[in-house]
Amino acid sequence: MPIQSIPEHIQKLINAFSRLPGIGPKTASRITFFLLRSPEELSQELSQALAILKESTGYCTQCFNLTHAHFERCEICRNPEREPNLICVVEDPLDVLAIERTEGFAGQYHVLHGALSPIEGIGPEDIKIRELLDRVKHEEIQEVILATNPTLDGDNTAMYLGKQLEPLGVRITRLARGLPVGGDLEYADQNTLRRALTGRSEM
Amino acid sequence: MPIQSIPEHIQKLINAFSRLPGIGPKTASRITFFLLRSPEELSQELSQALAILKESTGYCTQCFNLTHAHFERCEICRNPEREPNLICVVEDPLDVLAIERTEGFAGQYHVLHGALSPIEGIGPEDIKIRELLDRVKHEEIQEVILATNPTLDGDNTAMYLGKQLEPLGVRITRLARGLPVGGDLEYADQNTLRRALTGRSEM
Repeated sequence: MPIQSIPEHIQKLINAFSRLPGIGPKTASRITFFLLRSPEELSQELSQALAILKESTGYCTQCFNLTHAHFERCEICRNPEREPNLICVVEDPLDVLAIERTEGFAGQYHVLHGALSPIEGIGPEDIKIRELLDRVKHEEIQEVILATNPTLDGDNTAMYLGKQLEPLGVRITRLARGLPVGGDLEYADQNTLRRALTGRSEM
Repeated sequence: MPIQSIPEHIQKLINAFSRLPGIGPKTASRITFFLLRSPEELSQELSQALAILKESTGYCTQCFNLTHAHFERCEICRNPEREPNLICVVEDPLDVLAIERTEGFAGQYHVLHGALSPIEGIGPEDIKIRELLDRVKHEEIQEVILATNPTLDGDNTAMYLGKQLEPLGVRITRLARGLPVGGDLEYADQNTLRRALTGRSEM
């Protein structure tokens, strides 16, 4: 609800912030008033980073991860120190970020840009599946890690990819399911707990 | 922690977002990737609103609420339909917003821009107290509502203001303390509950 007592240019900024995910109208006001109290540099920096965001961003022609529009390939594909024979398949670029944060993976990625979803009408030709199969055929790939989301659509996509990849004679793996580290058994949902049981390992 | 795999211009935006209150690094990435997927208008709108934020904002010369820099007085002070004899004193402009949202107040405001705080070295001359006393002396004010925050500093400020205002022969009131509406008695902190008890009213 727009409050009349607020100058229009401030209300506009509050409205723009409220449209972002995870930011309700109260947080949007708090952020705006925080910027009003802060040095001008902060608003200007944010403003400039936003202004160039879309025009500066492109997608890697190899793995479809984000890249600066100046480059055909992303930083990971350009990095000669990364293992060339291992591809981790994810749904979107945010997942690349999450896996990179673990510092536990040094191979290549392939970003599908979505998952198969019969309900939303997303079929194999709508996401980067053909491009993945081409890579596996033409590059010397030894293992493909299917790291789609642990959701219905993500699992279906992994299953579909598994079938497509099998004839190509590559090792196909999935991320482990189980209890989250630091989680409490009592609060785990039953599916997770069931997976943790069936996937139990020797101590 | 900056992730190398992300183009620098995107990382910069994530960093800028993370500096805002209530936005951690994860939310900052989520917002940035959301903007990347959204139409360019959204980023541009946000960018432009931020660019003009500070230069377009001024403070009302009467009540020190926010106003557009073109105007000497804020929309509330300029509105002839608001009650002229009632002033609600708040710590900052965000509090004006909160009270306006209730649609339960139609008087004037006075924004102190802070609260007295011996620890932070904020004395009466550092906030807009003199200006409030001048208003009460020279305008026909009948009631001053002290709506400072229910904190130690806020309460001390209200107490100080009460003493200064008393000789001016104006009615001085404070916002009621008690249980929050929709709150659960069990979860109320003991000070709130004590206030709710001492302030109990007939049914």
